[in-house]
Amino acid sequence: MTTPDTPLTARIRDSFDRQHAMALVRAELTGIEEGRIEISVPHWTGVEQQHGFVHGGVVGMIADSAAGYAAMSVAGDGATVLTVEYKINLVAPADGDRIIARGEVVRPGRTLILTQAKVYALRDGTEHLCALMQQTIMVMRDRDERG
Amino acid sequence: MTTPDTPLTARIRDSFDRQHAMALVRAELTGIEEGRIEISVPHWTGVEQQHGFVHGGVVGMIADSAAGYAAMSVAGDGATVLTVEYKINLVAPADGDRIIARGEVVRPGRTLILTQAKVYALRDGTEHLCALMQQTIMVMRDRDERG
Amino acid sequence: MTTPDTPLTARIRDSFDRQHAMALVRAELTGIEEGRIEISVPHWTGVEQQHGFVHGGVVGMIADSAAGYAAMSVAGDGATVLTVEYKINLVAPADGDRIIARGEVVRPGRTLILTQAKVYALRDGTEHLCALMQQTIMVMRDRDERG
Amino acid sequence: MTTPDTPLTARIRDSFDRQHAMALVRAELTGIEEGRIEISVPHWTGVEQQHGFVHGGVVGMIADSAAGYAAMSVAGDGATVLTVEYKINLVAPADGDRIIARGEVVRPGRTLILTQAKVYALRDGTEHLCALMQQTIMVMRDRDERG
Repeated sequence: MTTPDTPLTARIRDSFDRQHAMALVRAELTGIEEGRIEISVPHWTGVEQQHGFVHGGVVGMIADSAAGYAAMSVAGDGATVLTVEYKINLVAPADGDRIIARGEVVRPGRTLILTQAKVYALRDGTEHLCALMQQTIMVMRDRDERG
Repeated sequence: MTTPDTPLTARIRDSFDRQHAMALVRAELTGIEEGRIEISVPHWTGVEQQHGFVHGGVVGMIADSAAGYAAMSVAGDGATVLTVEYKINLVAPADGDRIIARGEVVRPGRTLILTQAKVYALRDGTEHLCALMQQTIMVMRDRDERG
Repeated sequence: MTTPDTPLTARIRDSFDRQHAMALVRAELTGIEEGRIEISVPHWTGVEQQHGFVHGGVVGMIADSAAGYAAMSVAGDGATVLTVEYKINLVAPADGDRIIARGEVVRPGRTLILTQAKVYALRDGTEHLCALMQQTIMVMRDRDERG
Repeated sequence: MTTPDTPLTARIRDSFDRQHAMALVRAELTGIEEGRIEISVPHWTGVEQQHGFVHGGVVGMIADSAAGYAAMSVAGDGATVLTVEYKINLVAPADGDRIIARGEVVRPGRTLILTQAKVYALRDGTEHLCALMQQTIMVMRDRDERG
């Protein structure tokens, strides 16, 4: 994914940078397009579960955020977004040097946005699907996200 | 919840302690019973999202773990468990001094276990529901969890 | 469940009676309370799947409706409700003389209502859990449901 | 979708034809390929909800079946499949002359298969997305589906 240098990009980066939990797991915003966001996290000791793979909770966290920001990227100026709910299938261990979540908008709406995310483990130079998520996002207008 | 000192308790504590991601977010195993597990996390800067509440990803992480360990607590000796999938509704911001996830088994099965978790924010001494999760767990037998 | 004779009861019965699909599967509204609705369907040939049990689709249909009407029962006068999404686990075959779905409100909200439904198969005089559903409902105000 | 005349096609048709609930709603198996199944239902009075659209329960029913048969189509000879759970977002009213569900396998596995279905309303000659479903299927081997 390419990341154009636009006001949208700046706004999403700014929001991402204010999330301490993303920094805690060392997640990075690695792709921003309208309707599509990529967040990835390197494999490091701090995010492991008991078998040495990346924790499913961290997989869920970056999938949720990637799809949420994908929704925010189409919601219009001044709108903020909230995760109403999501459902995630963990289909394989997050076994790789890097875990990559790609969120995208399936159907935008004025109040609700339907999104999806796929999460891949980058292992031996190849991406292996490890999770699929389906998510409902609610759009909030006329409200500063900092508020 | 009380936490009796049994082999089950020791086994779940041991598994929990090997999860680096749980230590990273400062999650604690605060209750162990057969079929019911409580995991909680204090509110601290590292787990915040952009509004200063606890990140939804961390809420999902402790809900998933609490319900997963609840399943493990009924799966029998030598069995390990895997999260197949879960669905979580985030109904209010995780706004509190402590976030408490309580997982429980709804229906045990030989291969699949259906569980549920409720997550509460402890604020001004009162627990406020912030998330509800429904989860499918798969039981793996004859296999060392470390393997 | 008791079914008191109130304007709420009349309003929900009226909406239910206009759903041809409910009549098609022979579903009946068997309990109405504020925040709790019961819909059940007798076992008859028309709703069977290939093994002679009641079809999972019919189970989902009455679970969705029971929980949706539970939400409607707390949404206030003039409000109508829409199913945004639901997730259902089918934990056992719907094997019984009658299949009973009980929906209830978990957390009401101004725009979104979180609900849950349990579905039981009545067999040999005992209710056996066959499905658990978690659902998100959206409230629409100032709009005639017929519109 | 094309429907080749193979043993797989015959097996899926045979199973579909034994589901009375599918006949009740007048659902038809309109496409069979390995890993992809299409089931559609005409708009007729019997499947309507209170606004005259096709009932969400019927939408869920054909989505669940289409994705389940998609899983069966890759599960191998003699294997049968069970729906463990599904999650469906209803994004628009099922407003059309015909409602078309297309299920496909996202990730096959020995015990569990992850699938997805999209449901469209055919209106004025154009397909409009009305639902998205994500589903977990369990494979049962060495067992006659009639059993």
